[in-house]
Amino acid sequence: MSRRPIDVAVVGATGAVGREMLRVLEQRGSPVQRLVLLASSRSAGRTLRFRGRDLTVRPTTRDSFRGVDVALFSAGVAVSRQFAACAVESGAVVVDNSSAFRLQPGVPLVVPECNTEALAGHRGIVANPNCSTIILALALAPLQRIAGLKQVIVSTYQAASGAGRRAMEELRSATRAHLSGAGFEPSAMPHDLAFNVFPQVDVFQPDGYTREEDKMVDEMRKILALPALPLEATCVRVPVERCHGMAVTVALQRPLSPARARFALEHSPGIVVCDDPEAAEYPTPRAMAGLDPVAVGRIRPSRVFDPGLTLWVVGDQLRKGAALNAVQIVENLSNLRTRSGARVEDSVRPGAE
Amino acid sequence: MSRRPIDVAVVGATGAVGREMLRVLEQRGSPVQRLVLLASSRSAGRTLRFRGRDLTVRPTTRDSFRGVDVALFSAGVAVSRQFAACAVESGAVVVDNSSAFRLQPGVPLVVPECNTEALAGHRGIVANPNCSTIILALALAPLQRIAGLKQVIVSTYQAASGAGRRAMEELRSATRAHLSGAGFEPSAMPHDLAFNVFPQVDVFQPDGYTREEDKMVDEMRKILALPALPLEATCVRVPVERCHGMAVTVALQRPLSPARARFALEHSPGIVVCDDPEAAEYPTPRAMAGLDPVAVGRIRPSRVFDPGLTLWVVGDQLRKGAALNAVQIVENLSNLRTRSGARVEDSVRPGAE
Repeated sequence: MSRRPIDVAVVGATGAVGREMLRVLEQRGSPVQRLVLLASSRSAGRTLRFRGRDLTVRPTTRDSFRGVDVALFSAGVAVSRQFAACAVESGAVVVDNSSAFRLQPGVPLVVPECNTEALAGHRGIVANPNCSTIILALALAPLQRIAGLKQVIVSTYQAASGAGRRAMEELRSATRAHLSGAGFEPSAMPHDLAFNVFPQVDVFQPDGYTREEDKMVDEMRKILALPALPLEATCVRVPVERCHGMAVTVALQRPLSPARARFALEHSPGIVVCDDPEAAEYPTPRAMAGLDPVAVGRIRPSRVFDPGLTLWVVGDQLRKGAALNAVQIVENLSNLRTRSGARVEDSVRPGAE
Repeated sequence: MSRRPIDVAVVGATGAVGREMLRVLEQRGSPVQRLVLLASSRSAGRTLRFRGRDLTVRPTTRDSFRGVDVALFSAGVAVSRQFAACAVESGAVVVDNSSAFRLQPGVPLVVPECNTEALAGHRGIVANPNCSTIILALALAPLQRIAGLKQVIVSTYQAASGAGRRAMEELRSATRAHLSGAGFEPSAMPHDLAFNVFPQVDVFQPDGYTREEDKMVDEMRKILALPALPLEATCVRVPVERCHGMAVTVALQRPLSPARARFALEHSPGIVVCDDPEAAEYPTPRAMAGLDPVAVGRIRPSRVFDPGLTLWVVGDQLRKGAALNAVQIVENLSNLRTRSGARVEDSVRPGAE
């Protein structure tokens, strides 16, 4: 990130992703001059700690974005629809973690390691992809580059964090209840997740797929610029707190040995390869929690597709799957403009001044 | 099962599957005249309850099988290799839940709803398939019959029960430790399973697949009599107590609509269809725990294979995945002989008398 200080607003600051955004901004030493914490009026008045100071969360209004350079939105589709445009009008660049604008033509949908170039044409709003999509994109992009993707089949093992902070708390309460033999009525998730899994993330569409499964298809096609890529997902919620796992099978255009795939992935930004089965080494959600990279393991030849590979991917949903990717987008926004010689202030206030 | 009383031995009676075998025999009112409980010398001396009586577990020896009609083995490969032959010599039919004989030519590998006919030629030993294989076979067999399987890709969500009773206890202890912030050192499983998943069931083979993943391929091919069926699995352990889930994608030889597949599965023995996504109805491990049928839901067109289907399958690993299937094999052994007019006693003592 350019070291030019910027004023940042986080909309949905009290949520699981919002809180993670604060942590990421702090840990990366982002040049945040002023941080404006915004949330619903219900959460307003709470305080959150940032760089050792308690900041008060304020209700989101049309006036919240005055003087803000970058607004990170993570408060759901409705809030983004209501306030993103007015943040842009106020001169901020919006990095939106909701699905509101992701598929809109002209809105870049960006995973910086995969398609930074898409940022160039933004008009004030940049979309942060769905968490599962980001994690999977990091593993697929290098394979696409060197061997060409033909078909992708993925099954996910998604943490409670993807359903928000209430779901994470519900998982713990439900688990305590189950261990003590008590009953439990879920409210944040459609089923009791304690010692359970269920094949539903987000709502169902008429064709029997969920919105989460649709997002993975539509967003991946946009990010990889492969508009007809056949991709199917079964998205499953598992009793894990904050990392998503994925079993991925890819049919490739050209042969690619596991060894070459391993080498390519090891040398791709944002990825660590953790692949020594003999030593029981492969990525797990617990081991990856709180970490930045996406981890790939169990890289082996597919038994169904030839050429094809099968792999296991794990990434922290709150981190690379949401907050970190959003902050990286901000960093790349600045870089892009700085590289082209423009002032950072211009870059984060397109159309302003 | 024929009502002719039989003497049954359970080898590995104190294990998770052994105990479930007792429950299944009791609940189905199996005509067990005498029940011999066998285990390692370490577990010998314990008592287990059967039909309201406490039976003492004895150490397994070469003499344990005298007078036994059917011996249900579930104590691992080594015990089966050591004692199955001597049980057969004593006149018993062995139904073996280990992988010791499953792929041996001449040994029937049976899921009664799929291939009872394979029992006809048995020579004293009948193999009970791997738990994941049984559960998946129930869902695949009807699809194979009406539309022909071309390719199968499966990701599993396997319960701790598949790793035995110690693993089930370890999951609970590990979860308690995690909730209280304490450390935990796993011993029954390769990783701490509390709020975690890991892509390893059984040991790794040189090609990067696990034995569990190999078993699903080799055993499914034998059961369905499709020796070249391309099938690949990623087998993942999840923090669930006793039911396995599976995300399954099949390429078919002939078109098959979800509606017709649903109808075919609903009318297949051993299967319930639970498929009303709008109402959040699909099978879950918690809902299927302790139940006999395998449940299928989320039946939808594949987005990668045409023709093809994608589905979600859940079955109780201890029940249909192990104990129930073994007891059903016993029931079908008797039926086979009874139908052909032979006495049940002959049927359960082939070559004896």
